[in-house]
Amino acid sequence: MPPPDPVTLTDVRAAAEVLDGVVHRTPVLTSQTLDALVGGRVFCKAESFQRTGSFKLRGAYHALHRLVATGEVGPGGRPGQVGPGGRPGEVGPGGRPGEVGPGGKPGVVGPGGKPGVVAYSSGNFAQAIARAGRLLGIPVTVVMPRDAPEGKLAATRADGAEVVLYDRYTEDRDRIAGQLAAERRLQLVPPFDDPDVIAGQGTVATELFEQVDGLDLLVVPIGGGGLAAGCAAAAAGCSPATTVVGVEPAVRTVARDALRAGDVVHGAVPRTLLDGQQTTHVGHHPMRVLRDHLDRVVGVTDPAVVAALRFAVERLHIVLEPSGASALAAVLDGTIPVEGRRVGVVLSGGNVGATRLADLLRG
Amino acid sequence: MPPPDPVTLTDVRAAAEVLDGVVHRTPVLTSQTLDALVGGRVFCKAESFQRTGSFKLRGAYHALHRLVATGEVGPGGRPGQVGPGGRPGEVGPGGRPGEVGPGGKPGVVGPGGKPGVVAYSSGNFAQAIARAGRLLGIPVTVVMPRDAPEGKLAATRADGAEVVLYDRYTEDRDRIAGQLAAERRLQLVPPFDDPDVIAGQGTVATELFEQVDGLDLLVVPIGGGGLAAGCAAAAAGCSPATTVVGVEPAVRTVARDALRAGDVVHGAVPRTLLDGQQTTHVGHHPMRVLRDHLDRVVGVTDPAVVAALRFAVERLHIVLEPSGASALAAVLDGTIPVEGRRVGVVLSGGNVGATRLADLLRG
Repeated sequence: MPPPDPVTLTDVRAAAEVLDGVVHRTPVLTSQTLDALVGGRVFCKAESFQRTGSFKLRGAYHALHRLVATGEVGPGGRPGQVGPGGRPGEVGPGGRPGEVGPGGKPGVVGPGGKPGVVAYSSGNFAQAIARAGRLLGIPVTVVMPRDAPEGKLAATRADGAEVVLYDRYTEDRDRIAGQLAAERRLQLVPPFDDPDVIAGQGTVATELFEQVDGLDLLVVPIGGGGLAAGCAAAAAGCSPATTVVGVEPAVRTVARDALRAGDVVHGAVPRTLLDGQQTTHVGHHPMRVLRDHLDRVVGVTDPAVVAALRFAVERLHIVLEPSGASALAAVLDGTIPVEGRRVGVVLSGGNVGATRLADLLRG
Repeated sequence: MPPPDPVTLTDVRAAAEVLDGVVHRTPVLTSQTLDALVGGRVFCKAESFQRTGSFKLRGAYHALHRLVATGEVGPGGRPGQVGPGGRPGEVGPGGRPGEVGPGGKPGVVGPGGKPGVVAYSSGNFAQAIARAGRLLGIPVTVVMPRDAPEGKLAATRADGAEVVLYDRYTEDRDRIAGQLAAERRLQLVPPFDDPDVIAGQGTVATELFEQVDGLDLLVVPIGGGGLAAGCAAAAAGCSPATTVVGVEPAVRTVARDALRAGDVVHGAVPRTLLDGQQTTHVGHHPMRVLRDHLDRVVGVTDPAVVAALRFAVERLHIVLEPSGASALAAVLDGTIPVEGRRVGVVLSGGNVGATRLADLLRG
């Protein structure tokens, strides 16, 4: 018997409860022009309007909330309140009286919680984990490349995170993050290769299924696979007739290769405008969902993405970052035929500097 | 006793009923960053997400609907159904049995309705009246400058309107429109100097007052004055504690001058990025509302508008055309102080080509 999925609809629904009132219920945009162009009905889930400008807050907040709830990070289960005698209503979420003893389960609840978290990201996950930390009162350290966009560095710091810079060409961010985790006793929060992150990202899809009925297709960008796996798990559980398709940069084939191989495949850092999808591999946890529940992955070229950015500006009047437009690009340029079908398209983020956007729109 | 206002809250509410289900209820956007920058609570009414990309559809549709309902345009009151004997429920809106005789009131109801409408516009009103005509089944002719943006020409034609081009430097669009009206027996629909247009535009404000409570200020762009007058009339009627402020290009002073003079003041075509506010005067009908119900007008510079466009891109993730960002610019650059106040800001439109936007963002 194959091992169970690491993330199912039940996990995504539980994440949605945690995220209720914390993340925005983002709008679904439609355009008659778009429908006429592609011959189908397209429903754009605009996560560019999510808090922090991308879907990443969903997974980041959910994962951090779980770490706090289980006591792995933060003050944890307060010894005097947990365990037999403590009333269930006073115990932190997740702590049930029958499972913890006086003092808390060592290392999980109780005073042993780590004082903060560390993450690495060149972009949207940095802003998301910083915001999640601020909202939950947990100190956050983020390892970011020295040449990350000034706006992303500023936004991450504005939410109170400590930013540790590194040189992305000569230094290894995993090693730096690992060292910080060890030295400062911080908990590492991975940007995509984590069931709690995946479950959080999956709420994009459960929300969309609540907003729009009868989707034949759901098209999502795929980088490390957190969003795609969350959406695929959600669709498998609550809308099995919906075919889920991933979109990666044309020059990067690790998602297509991994789906074919049924396992993680590593590649080089791809040269593409799609900076949110430059990860060298799809994560192990996402792959365990994707190999069963993702129909296929297609590639989109940089010029197709620029055309989609221009379409978003002129017709939808919204700003997308390149990766945020990748799924739309694959539909607009016909890589994913949608004639006569109802199609959900995830616009995953809108964080792009004005000068950079100007450069992109010039083509 | 002064003459009554040409447009009141009652007219705006009646327009809202006509527009219900036709125009979008546009979203109100907020931003913690924006609030922190200006020290107030800012609620952005995003008419850039209106159908046809600007608020103009509200006034255009309402005015055209009225012309059809009164029989001035289109097949009018069908003779066999109107007049004594005809049941009131079968008569077109506005036609009451006591007022029309057999055959319809000549020239108003009955087969005398004109076969279509003509309008002149270099931009958003063209797209709006074209769409209104398509929705109501009325042929539309629009006189547009030969050098209007290709996107606006294409969008106007895409809605089935006939576009008559003219040279804005050597020809007079009023004369051309007047000639077309006479030759083809078309009804002219003015872009702003018309009570029905004003009442339609006022629904931006009634909608915003439904969405947000207790606004201290309402900031609206002012060009010909249709939007400003509609919003001022609405505020006077349903939110008298709200101060309404107009924003015009700094280099154009006709709105400020007119408010001071209490009457229409004409000026030259201003040189400004704010192409939606290049009208040479505020209309007579708008002025009759504005002199009593507009608190003041301020000017914004082109650089302040570019800064607002950049802010909209980077923080709100939306695309505005220059005039669509003029009210936001006046709040962002401190021309209108909003500290400690609740402020509505009308983002009036988002129609801008991608290449033009790129040029604007470069500054």
